Amino acid sequence: MLKMDDVSQFALKKHEEWKGKIEITARAPANTREDLTLAYTPGVAAPCLEIQKNPELSYKYTRRGNLVAVITDGTAVLGLGDIGGPAGMPVMEGKCILFKEFAGIDAFPICVKSKDTDTIVNTIVEISDSFGGINLEDISAPRCFEIEKRLIERLDIPVFHDDQHGTAVVTCAALINAAKCAEKKLADLKIVINGAGAAGIAIAKLMLRLGVGDIVLVDRKGILCRSEENSNPSKAEISKLTNKMLKTGKLSDAVVGADVFVGVSSPGVLTENMIKSMAEKPIVFAMANPIPEIMPDVAMEAGAYILGTGRSDFPNQINNLLVFPGIFKGALQIRAKKITKDMKLAAAKAIADMIKSEDLNPQNIIPSPLDKNVPDVVAKAVAGTILGC
Amino acid sequence: MLKMDDVSQFALKKHEEWKGKIEITARAPANTREDLTLAYTPGVAAPCLEIQKNPELSYKYTRRGNLVAVITDGTAVLGLGDIGGPAGMPVMEGKCILFKEFAGIDAFPICVKSKDTDTIVNTIVEISDSFGGINLEDISAPRCFEIEKRLIERLDIPVFHDDQHGTAVVTCAALINAAKCAEKKLADLKIVINGAGAAGIAIAKLMLRLGVGDIVLVDRKGILCRSEENSNPSKAEISKLTNKMLKTGKLSDAVVGADVFVGVSSPGVLTENMIKSMAEKPIVFAMANPIPEIMPDVAMEAGAYILGTGRSDFPNQINNLLVFPGIFKGALQIRAKKITKDMKLAAAKAIADMIKSEDLNPQNIIPSPLDKNVPDVVAKAVAGTILGC
Repeated sequence: MLKMDDVSQFALKKHEEWKGKIEITARAPANTREDLTLAYTPGVAAPCLEIQKNPELSYKYTRRGNLVAVITDGTAVLGLGDIGGPAGMPVMEGKCILFKEFAGIDAFPICVKSKDTDTIVNTIVEISDSFGGINLEDISAPRCFEIEKRLIERLDIPVFHDDQHGTAVVTCAALINAAKCAEKKLADLKIVINGAGAAGIAIAKLMLRLGVGDIVLVDRKGILCRSEENSNPSKAEISKLTNKMLKTGKLSDAVVGADVFVGVSSPGVLTENMIKSMAEKPIVFAMANPIPEIMPDVAMEAGAYILGTGRSDFPNQINNLLVFPGIFKGALQIRAKKITKDMKLAAAKAIADMIKSEDLNPQNIIPSPLDKNVPDVVAKAVAGTILGC
Repeated sequence: MLKMDDVSQFALKKHEEWKGKIEITARAPANTREDLTLAYTPGVAAPCLEIQKNPELSYKYTRRGNLVAVITDGTAVLGLGDIGGPAGMPVMEGKCILFKEFAGIDAFPICVKSKDTDTIVNTIVEISDSFGGINLEDISAPRCFEIEKRLIERLDIPVFHDDQHGTAVVTCAALINAAKCAEKKLADLKIVINGAGAAGIAIAKLMLRLGVGDIVLVDRKGILCRSEENSNPSKAEISKLTNKMLKTGKLSDAVVGADVFVGVSSPGVLTENMIKSMAEKPIVFAMANPIPEIMPDVAMEAGAYILGTGRSDFPNQINNLLVFPGIFKGALQIRAKKITKDMKLAAAKAIADMIKSEDLNPQNIIPSPLDKNVPDVVAKAVAGTILGC
């Protein structure tokens, strides 16, 4: 494997060569007078007038039905933080090529200048008629919650903050199979989620919907507990739905007796002793990227039964590339107005089901993110969901 | 030639088959772990950090340097009027494929919901970091003037309202060669422009810059004259720069003794008698589309020396397809912050110069809009212009 310095140098060189990772090409010819008569004036007036009569026909006569905007304000790009919109665009373009190559979806990257919630929401609403769906990306918490909530209320096209829900869906998929593998029931699971930002809270919400036993969230200050005041409304809300035993203290207190550790936090925060304090057959998803909460070999040595990370160089890569292409493909197919919790759960179960019982083992709980069969399976599950929030 | 009804039916069928006239494709591969390491995480962090240090590098490491937004609010789409953003999108997609096929520029169509000048300006400013240039399209006058003006002030990327300036440039190109052909000096020309909307006013301004003798603008109410009040600030402004003789009255009064008639108005408004009342060797640009101000055979019968229309089925097609691909190509090549009047004049002269002296005649004053050599010639002229507003 290349060293990180070498990867950076090579990636820079490749980005310079590519001159952008996306390209806009023509699906209609524009060479002859006849071409222009049909694709441009005067022929183009016909689809214009049809759409004027019935705006739904924009899905028939323009690219809208297969087109998703990938939008950021550049405030939480990868682990780099608030680097600004233009600096976030290489990531957005990367996301767009994943949409295309994994789901055949046309995705277009946009960065918004403002970091103000109202301005971001209004800007996206203003341009939303140009798209069939909106994928929010790398917007910092807690603004991302409010931005997504308001957009879902105001728009009748799917809006999906991948850092929240993509991560939540793939983590639930991994959890379903991990529990099966460890012969534990979801309803009995005690889960610790370390990190109570966008991803952590979304994972907790979807796991509750999945019917897990109890969840304890931990942030930098310690365990989230409803008995304590929390000025962050998202944290206050989730603390009411979790931590039934009203635990308090630090991560090391939270993990005692837990079945599952989910890390969406920082490198190295999970110790061997913490794993040793967990319940039998500990399940550890150490998803901090690129350096996980505990290195896999150390975790296994300490007794982890199942280990997943965000990395491609270890088994069980828990990566939301398994999720967003298929979720949007399914939602666009049925022209869903929203991406519901049921769709997310259906996606999680469909991903989990892709590992056949006979192939399921602690080193193989989830398909490879490079498996291009996944998006169609997810899309089918999502499209098959009966709508309802 | 197909009848209009047949064109409409066939165009609808083709639009349904195309499922959108543009497509977003991947320029970087996303198949293997190595691909993702370079185009996505963790490699993508390197160009992100470089752009964070120097935002100009977004032109090097993302698609921005070759990417233009084609933006409308749907208020003045073709001759169809205010049909709304989504209904305007087939035209915007059409424009985008012309950008691609004629100049190799990636253009992306966006419609804005609002018709409020402030909101449109703010929305475009918010998303402007995603693009290398902004082509405004089919926005109604007089809002289009204010919107373009404010965007030019606030942005440091080229902003170009094609309905104004594309039309102005190509009309000036045609005028240069028509005058040459009729052996008249530009400085002596008396010009009547019928139609004082976005196109008419822009044509007048650029022709003044070109150094023509005098221009009289006529709108639905009659001749524009500085001695009369005009509540429309754009018309009030242009009336101060034109109509030196303080003519008043109707179109039929304006054209008496005129060398040139430029129509950006309505079908059939120019009569044979009006042409007979013009100066010797009348030059008639009847550009209303698809039905011109006077039909070419009627105009020639009445004594027109040179006739141009917007249509491809008559000689001398005065079409802004000759302009916008090359203007943007040149502006992007030199990373111009604005498209200046000098660039527009350089473009007009370059287009005119493409007709060699020996080929110049009343039926051949301007290159075919389908001539794909034009954009490079225009781009070279634009890029060679010394910057300065």
